[in-house]
Amino acid sequence: MYTTNISVSGQLIDSGLLLQVFDSVANLGGEFKILQTEFGKTKAEKGRAIIQVGADTCEGLDKILSRVKELGAEVLDGKNVQLAIVEQDGVCPDGFYASTNIETYVCLDGQWVPVDDIEMDCAIVVDTRKRTARCCPIARVVRGQHVVVGASGIRVASMASARATEVFSFMGSDVSSERPKALIVEQVASEMKEVRNRGGKILVIAGPAVVHTGAGCHLSRLIDAGYVNLLYAGNAVATHDVEWALLGTSLGVRLDDGTSAPMGHTHHLRAINAIRKAGGLKPAVKQGVLTKGVMHSLITNDVPYVLAGSIRDDGPLPDVITDAVEAQDAMRKNLKGVEIALMLSTMLHAIATGNLLPARVKTICVDINPAVVTKLADRGTFQAIGIVSDVEWFLKELAGYLAAD
Amino acid sequence: MYTTNISVSGQLIDSGLLLQVFDSVANLGGEFKILQTEFGKTKAEKGRAIIQVGADTCEGLDKILSRVKELGAEVLDGKNVQLAIVEQDGVCPDGFYASTNIETYVCLDGQWVPVDDIEMDCAIVVDTRKRTARCCPIARVVRGQHVVVGASGIRVASMASARATEVFSFMGSDVSSERPKALIVEQVASEMKEVRNRGGKILVIAGPAVVHTGAGCHLSRLIDAGYVNLLYAGNAVATHDVEWALLGTSLGVRLDDGTSAPMGHTHHLRAINAIRKAGGLKPAVKQGVLTKGVMHSLITNDVPYVLAGSIRDDGPLPDVITDAVEAQDAMRKNLKGVEIALMLSTMLHAIATGNLLPARVKTICVDINPAVVTKLADRGTFQAIGIVSDVEWFLKELAGYLAAD
Amino acid sequence: MYTTNISVSGQLIDSGLLLQVFDSVANLGGEFKILQTEFGKTKAEKGRAIIQVGADTCEGLDKILSRVKELGAEVLDGKNVQLAIVEQDGVCPDGFYASTNIETYVCLDGQWVPVDDIEMDCAIVVDTRKRTARCCPIARVVRGQHVVVGASGIRVASMASARATEVFSFMGSDVSSERPKALIVEQVASEMKEVRNRGGKILVIAGPAVVHTGAGCHLSRLIDAGYVNLLYAGNAVATHDVEWALLGTSLGVRLDDGTSAPMGHTHHLRAINAIRKAGGLKPAVKQGVLTKGVMHSLITNDVPYVLAGSIRDDGPLPDVITDAVEAQDAMRKNLKGVEIALMLSTMLHAIATGNLLPARVKTICVDINPAVVTKLADRGTFQAIGIVSDVEWFLKELAGYLAAD
Amino acid sequence: MYTTNISVSGQLIDSGLLLQVFDSVANLGGEFKILQTEFGKTKAEKGRAIIQVGADTCEGLDKILSRVKELGAEVLDGKNVQLAIVEQDGVCPDGFYASTNIETYVCLDGQWVPVDDIEMDCAIVVDTRKRTARCCPIARVVRGQHVVVGASGIRVASMASARATEVFSFMGSDVSSERPKALIVEQVASEMKEVRNRGGKILVIAGPAVVHTGAGCHLSRLIDAGYVNLLYAGNAVATHDVEWALLGTSLGVRLDDGTSAPMGHTHHLRAINAIRKAGGLKPAVKQGVLTKGVMHSLITNDVPYVLAGSIRDDGPLPDVITDAVEAQDAMRKNLKGVEIALMLSTMLHAIATGNLLPARVKTICVDINPAVVTKLADRGTFQAIGIVSDVEWFLKELAGYLAAD
Repeated sequence: MYTTNISVSGQLIDSGLLLQVFDSVANLGGEFKILQTEFGKTKAEKGRAIIQVGADTCEGLDKILSRVKELGAEVLDGKNVQLAIVEQDGVCPDGFYASTNIETYVCLDGQWVPVDDIEMDCAIVVDTRKRTARCCPIARVVRGQHVVVGASGIRVASMASARATEVFSFMGSDVSSERPKALIVEQVASEMKEVRNRGGKILVIAGPAVVHTGAGCHLSRLIDAGYVNLLYAGNAVATHDVEWALLGTSLGVRLDDGTSAPMGHTHHLRAINAIRKAGGLKPAVKQGVLTKGVMHSLITNDVPYVLAGSIRDDGPLPDVITDAVEAQDAMRKNLKGVEIALMLSTMLHAIATGNLLPARVKTICVDINPAVVTKLADRGTFQAIGIVSDVEWFLKELAGYLAAD
Repeated sequence: MYTTNISVSGQLIDSGLLLQVFDSVANLGGEFKILQTEFGKTKAEKGRAIIQVGADTCEGLDKILSRVKELGAEVLDGKNVQLAIVEQDGVCPDGFYASTNIETYVCLDGQWVPVDDIEMDCAIVVDTRKRTARCCPIARVVRGQHVVVGASGIRVASMASARATEVFSFMGSDVSSERPKALIVEQVASEMKEVRNRGGKILVIAGPAVVHTGAGCHLSRLIDAGYVNLLYAGNAVATHDVEWALLGTSLGVRLDDGTSAPMGHTHHLRAINAIRKAGGLKPAVKQGVLTKGVMHSLITNDVPYVLAGSIRDDGPLPDVITDAVEAQDAMRKNLKGVEIALMLSTMLHAIATGNLLPARVKTICVDINPAVVTKLADRGTFQAIGIVSDVEWFLKELAGYLAAD
Repeated sequence: MYTTNISVSGQLIDSGLLLQVFDSVANLGGEFKILQTEFGKTKAEKGRAIIQVGADTCEGLDKILSRVKELGAEVLDGKNVQLAIVEQDGVCPDGFYASTNIETYVCLDGQWVPVDDIEMDCAIVVDTRKRTARCCPIARVVRGQHVVVGASGIRVASMASARATEVFSFMGSDVSSERPKALIVEQVASEMKEVRNRGGKILVIAGPAVVHTGAGCHLSRLIDAGYVNLLYAGNAVATHDVEWALLGTSLGVRLDDGTSAPMGHTHHLRAINAIRKAGGLKPAVKQGVLTKGVMHSLITNDVPYVLAGSIRDDGPLPDVITDAVEAQDAMRKNLKGVEIALMLSTMLHAIATGNLLPARVKTICVDINPAVVTKLADRGTFQAIGIVSDVEWFLKELAGYLAAD
Repeated sequence: MYTTNISVSGQLIDSGLLLQVFDSVANLGGEFKILQTEFGKTKAEKGRAIIQVGADTCEGLDKILSRVKELGAEVLDGKNVQLAIVEQDGVCPDGFYASTNIETYVCLDGQWVPVDDIEMDCAIVVDTRKRTARCCPIARVVRGQHVVVGASGIRVASMASARATEVFSFMGSDVSSERPKALIVEQVASEMKEVRNRGGKILVIAGPAVVHTGAGCHLSRLIDAGYVNLLYAGNAVATHDVEWALLGTSLGVRLDDGTSAPMGHTHHLRAINAIRKAGGLKPAVKQGVLTKGVMHSLITNDVPYVLAGSIRDDGPLPDVITDAVEAQDAMRKNLKGVEIALMLSTMLHAIATGNLLPARVKTICVDINPAVVTKLADRGTFQAIGIVSDVEWFLKELAGYLAAD
């Protein structure tokens, strides 16, 4: 749904003006909502109404706007987008427009051009010759580029349409552990099946609790069954997964019986060292050093992954991208076609990925801590649906639906 | 393990005194631990050692103490217990001894008498003629009774022995969601089997999340399979369970599809009213009004339950004991023979029950909120093992082990 | 703002019917909002619009409704209230209307009668002779009374007007510790001053953390300065307050230096016993046993208090009302005139009090745990404003504003 | 306190062997603790005792060990340290010893050499010619270096001595908001005064809540008063601090009245862009762009800071070190002389800094979320003292003690 606001002034009631506007919108298949009305005290006095009009396509909306302009309505956002030139690499012009994560169009010479690479908190760079536009992080704008400034000539799809999809709608925005979650897992599973069947991509963002709780095996089953097309994580997930594959423990706790291994607190360092020795995770798989686990499943199934570094990392593994800006770029590169993002017990990576995702991506955040979902939404990933639950059993149930033998 | 401290003074090293003490203890099957030593600067100077000695039984410890007294050691806690008379109903003498929840003995005329009805924060009432002792809440002491005062002549089993049992030991005291919980559920299940096989009782304390998450059916399966011998809960659990049985919802949310029922927020009031009309839960079952759910399972399986009231209750149901002191008494009445207490998603009832339980009861507290377990332990129920997880899946897994068809 | 919905059907556009309705509402000082419109495909086809109309008073709304009825609109909620007779004490008729905590009117023989004792989750009992109505808990309805059933003839003030008041509006509904709280305390202080100056009542609901953190002295200062007109708490608050007054500790921790007292875990029992011996808190003050603390301040300033019992209580103190239903009644009795409810670090008592409060009472909930505010709102006390912060410093700051020497 | 274990075997009791050992240790000013004893069943049978011996200095311990070896005791850790050669940059030899954060010595040719740059989870690199040893992260070892392998010849100061210092001891390890915190702040203030007076360094690690809550001004006062010698933070702290300085908001919320600014969610991007334009924070101060705030205080007081990047950063500011490994190195560089680390509302940076700190640094972690302190301790920073409280008021109180005008 694309919407914009129009203003209608005059003798609203007697003249029938308002009704003509409603009529035109309805005739053209559009919708309208009266946002504000100031009727005159007498019928003769002038009044003013602000009306939101919407249509399913940008083009449909254009038609409606043309018609109501003829009737005398003023279109409140109908101007061309304003551009300014970047004078210094990585620095935007003052007053640059900061993008949201919702589908956006900019008006170039009277035409609505869709913005590519939708991502929140970016500048919009316009190629005036090719008549294209795309989101670009501040640090990546280059001298001489045209960047959108101001607020006119920009149209953003309404939030409502970005959010609610039939299947997901019943979960609402509730962040609560006190709801029946078995139903929700079933819904997520059926959504994942659909996405896979139509060739969409599923992104998993995982935190170390996935491995610590022994749920790595369920994630591996999902990978083997083709339900993970992309994985984002940090050094810790891969390290403890390797620790388990090589030494049977995660953070020193044996996953087969829950006991602590003697000197287990050093195991992750030995795991890191073994992979560094092999030259990385892929060589380790090739050399037969790494023979099981989540990373092994990803590599043997050719599923791309991004391991992003953090200042709390030990090691790190050679596969980790230690530079935060480079890691963000690597994550951006793979997002085309992603339809579902499954965030599993990680606040840092969930928020970081949420920052890069268009709002149209169905985003499910599973965490035992309700604050993670709240923070994620507060930071702009409003479309995230929170499941406050135990990731171990979430993955077990999900794999039960999708990867039963 | 019963322990007490002794003091050995003199020329510890040259005289061989210390070694004689160690020797005697070891010969009598006891254990010792040197708590503190002050050796003289020269061999000739006198020193002092405080030594903890322990034995498996109170009698064994007595033998050891007799022997080391002959060697010249001083037994630090060996006096008779002191008693004072209650002068006013419900008021203890000044300086009364406040009990712990650990197995305790009091020394009456040189003999160690076990204290019955072990419960923390109580007075110990002694029947001097029958030579018996028992824990009694302050509010329940009666004029003329003898109550233990001071600290001498009291022996408490060491905490260590109260806590660690083989099966449970691997869980340690860790309160964390980042551990493999599937293993833990398996252990709990096998412990419950053993307890049932040897005729021990299993107490379940349940909070409303059990019903809200749709896990009531798993709890019913456990009841039907004979794994629940006693249930403590509040008005809310029973109310929402009845709400589900009568109207299909819990707090207005339909448990079969997760959607909200129109006017669902009034459903619990209609459920309460229906049971009030029937005259209580048992009449409602008899009349065919209540035909399923947790309360139905309890009643049809003749499992006793205590529903304790709270100031946040609506209604309440006629079965609820609204007086807090009476409710505590009702809970106390059933505790004999309880070997396992399973606390499911309730802070208030978990702490209240924990207050009444002897520490020897294996206490498992399942909550998605780690603070509940921490609080429980802080309030004296140190033996509680915390499982930070989702109660819905905990019960599903547990019922899978114990009540598979 | 009182609102109701009307339906307008017919040739909406050409006939000018819709505009006439808008016109009438506006002329009578009302407001309208188009909720739904179905215009015909051609101008001649019939359509239907659902319009919400509102006015500042119930009477104003009645005038508007009379006028629009003349124009052909259908008033969707305009019937008389339906009544049924109570046949059994404590049991409502089937289909009884369950109240909300918002100002409510019922239509008796065409007249809108305000409902007294507004409280959520109650029945509405109507005295048909006196033409009065009031909220009544299910357990308190009596055989022969008339109770409202069904949904017609009931008008509830809109939530919006119940919520937003100028002073409080800036806080929004945000529950977050990451906001500047110094500003909020200042606002609360200024609001409390105003309420006191106009003779309104301030209710404080306190949890034991107030005492444990050493903030009892700040609460005493507020009581002494006349800013507390009513206090609700449990046995624990009073017990630890007395423990501090008699023994210098709270839960065994010395409040002057933060160290643990030897045998401190028994101090609260000695405090309880001392007050039981004295015969209660007031006698203890009279006898000179209790000479300081929060309870002492309440008693010497003649501020009424309700101590409500719970199954986790030790003792309890003789002042505690141990029966939950009686305690609720005692709490209800004092609520007339309360304009501010300050909930300090207690989930149980906050929710219990929230259940009894009309939504018009400004409700401020201070807790270090954001879940308390969320739960409070989920349970119907939607008007509560959460301050996620440390109660110790909240009270210190507040007393700094209101009770500086 | 340096400790090691010895084993004494033989006819322990009759021979007087055990007593001779105790005697020697005591005569040399050491302490001992019997860890384990297996006495023979008869006096003649052989037994074995494991005894922990300790002394205040490594040298003192050496003397004791020499003496007890003469008596026939076996010193369990007395061998030379084992070394292996690094064959590949950034890869340790198999079986390398992983360091703890506690003062450590290695035995080189019979002499105990202290390990420099103490840091947990590192390798220990030994310079065999210079006879020095130091901690080195795995990624930084270089081909040809000697690294400690195995466990012999390594001595670690006991944890006990690392932890408890008089001033801090009263706080214990309790992580609770239910304790009097005013006392704790006073203690922290007095400790900071002492450290400053003796020329020690104070490190502050800050999270964005410091700025969001409006507490930046209190931190600035502490900086201006000379109580901050080093600051570690992320891009967000500096960004929102600049946002406040330039636009009056933090995350779009005006800090002077708590209201949201229109388009406030873009303010942080404008702040970042402004600093990027200026070429960094220091140029921005020089150019008069940045005239107040925490970063301004640091720069004008010449206090070094490290801003470490993360994948959730916008921008980032030019001052941010985006590479995680480089950022860790920058943090390591400044740690010499740090005696107090004050961690304020940041989990990521607290854990990252905790990883680098020797355990002897007094570490205070202030967070409203108790889980942060628990995690910090779980990850090895066991010395951290948690203050569960509101950072806004903690800083206000602290600045009141240390930076009152």
